[in-house]
Amino acid sequence: MNSALEILEQYKGQVESELERHLPRTGEPKEFYSSVWELLDRGGKRFRPAFTFLACECVGGRKEEAVAAAASVELLHNMTLVHDDIEDESELRRGKPTIHRMYGVPTAINVGDAMLIKVFEIANSSKIPQERCHRLVSQIAKRAYDITWGQALEFSMWKRKEFIEDEVIQLLRYKTGALTRLAVEAGAVSGGATEEQLQALGEFGETVGISFQIVDDILNVEGDFKEYGKEIGGDIREGKKTVIAAHLLTAAKPTDKRVFTRLLGKKSITKVEIRKVIALYEKYASITYAKSQADAYLKKSKEALNKLPASDPRNNLSTVAEFLVSRSF
Amino acid sequence: MNSALEILEQYKGQVESELERHLPRTGEPKEFYSSVWELLDRGGKRFRPAFTFLACECVGGRKEEAVAAAASVELLHNMTLVHDDIEDESELRRGKPTIHRMYGVPTAINVGDAMLIKVFEIANSSKIPQERCHRLVSQIAKRAYDITWGQALEFSMWKRKEFIEDEVIQLLRYKTGALTRLAVEAGAVSGGATEEQLQALGEFGETVGISFQIVDDILNVEGDFKEYGKEIGGDIREGKKTVIAAHLLTAAKPTDKRVFTRLLGKKSITKVEIRKVIALYEKYASITYAKSQADAYLKKSKEALNKLPASDPRNNLSTVAEFLVSRSF
Repeated sequence: MNSALEILEQYKGQVESELERHLPRTGEPKEFYSSVWELLDRGGKRFRPAFTFLACECVGGRKEEAVAAAASVELLHNMTLVHDDIEDESELRRGKPTIHRMYGVPTAINVGDAMLIKVFEIANSSKIPQERCHRLVSQIAKRAYDITWGQALEFSMWKRKEFIEDEVIQLLRYKTGALTRLAVEAGAVSGGATEEQLQALGEFGETVGISFQIVDDILNVEGDFKEYGKEIGGDIREGKKTVIAAHLLTAAKPTDKRVFTRLLGKKSITKVEIRKVIALYEKYASITYAKSQADAYLKKSKEALNKLPASDPRNNLSTVAEFLVSRSF
Repeated sequence: MNSALEILEQYKGQVESELERHLPRTGEPKEFYSSVWELLDRGGKRFRPAFTFLACECVGGRKEEAVAAAASVELLHNMTLVHDDIEDESELRRGKPTIHRMYGVPTAINVGDAMLIKVFEIANSSKIPQERCHRLVSQIAKRAYDITWGQALEFSMWKRKEFIEDEVIQLLRYKTGALTRLAVEAGAVSGGATEEQLQALGEFGETVGISFQIVDDILNVEGDFKEYGKEIGGDIREGKKTVIAAHLLTAAKPTDKRVFTRLLGKKSITKVEIRKVIALYEKYASITYAKSQADAYLKKSKEALNKLPASDPRNNLSTVAEFLVSRSF
């Protein structure tokens, strides 16, 4: 039985070389080529491509059939980070300045577009039967569009001071959920999945994504910078709608709620005020609650997975999912 | 023999309904759906989709086979406008505020992404044999990437005070040229073109695009606002690299050149100063020169077209090309 890290390591190299086949590293104008690779080279866990490969094997496909799909999904993920960071005015990503901070907004918009175009080019060039390739492009378009819809939903909630957990979960479903859903779906389609297999694996991917994002939001308030690579408490400054925050809004006494509502999304928030918000989260056990929700979605993801017959790749999907959700706590 | 306007009118409706099949007009969040349609509803000549239909018929395809390709290309065009306007900080488009001025930068970035995704979804759903559909998606990805490369090239030249016509032509080739090239290529591929037909039609599209853009740059300094829909002299304020400006840099006496170099790209430029620049263009006959270049590229486009056997659709392509380049002068 492989550990999660061993599984992730196993699939890393192939994605890298597939991306290099489609995205030259050098050329003129220099900024165009280097900015495409900037985030990709910062790494990340690359768990999405591992999901793609494993889902492909899960439905009886060969690992090689999922290479283009995996590269395409990883690129889509990185592309969304480039544009999201402009939209959210984020300063840091994976421990370094965001692309628009390094290269300016125009280049960051343009390079995100170039990456999005390559997402489709790579998928469309997949060495799988043409019918599957067609279905792959279609599935990527569907989920990528879901992600933009989720982003729009988030914008529409930016100024809202009141929100409930259901609304947060819908955001997570479309933003992070759609991408991890696509990661497994892209692999499944590449491997020739039936509709039933696609459905079960998609459900697995979506619920893992929700669980993963809840954990990510927890790390934003209790992680340490070195491991997390983003500003601690940054979500509080941004006024991000999280399960933690939704819980607090329901659980807190009126006086605490007023303090919280005033501080959530305050652009000029101080470190002391960020600590105050985190203290409120602790007082009402909002972080503990979010952890329990992350676990609940992880459980759902396993139930979805269990609709497929037992196999090594299925076990590996489960191992990686558990690893993602158990990071740092 | 049809007039250009009759030809354009003939193809307009089908693109509209194909776009509506893929892009709902209403839904929540409201801004997401309305911002997608904002520019599309402002119209424009829709000559690119006409090119797509005519190119399809030119290679023996049926008009219906080009519907998805035409809608896809028109959407790509509109999408590039949304993102370009953010990158160039433009205020007006088709006589009204740009998308980011109406909805804010985050929504404009996101909706451009959504449109770009739909470009591929629509192409991939084309009701043509699967092999052609595959080639269509591939061709769109190729040219769309060219456009982002051209955009990057433009960024790399933003701060340059010296530039020559060859550099400007390369910009036009990749930015506007790639899109009109794609418009005809998408039709050709949908109609089952041979490589030779694709090449000839592609060359036609590219040179028409270059010619068209030279004319557009002329209209920016001599058109009237009502017809043009953008700020007159806006290109001068932006410091846009045009054939007109490149000509002046070569032709002007040192004193005039110094004045020009100081004013081109001056953000706080006054109306009087804009008129001064235009007077310099007139003094050195730079606009007249640009017109002759527009004609030369139009001639090249006809030569490319003449590689195909004579036919009604070929004649119509030629008629539309001439119309585009003869706008307003």
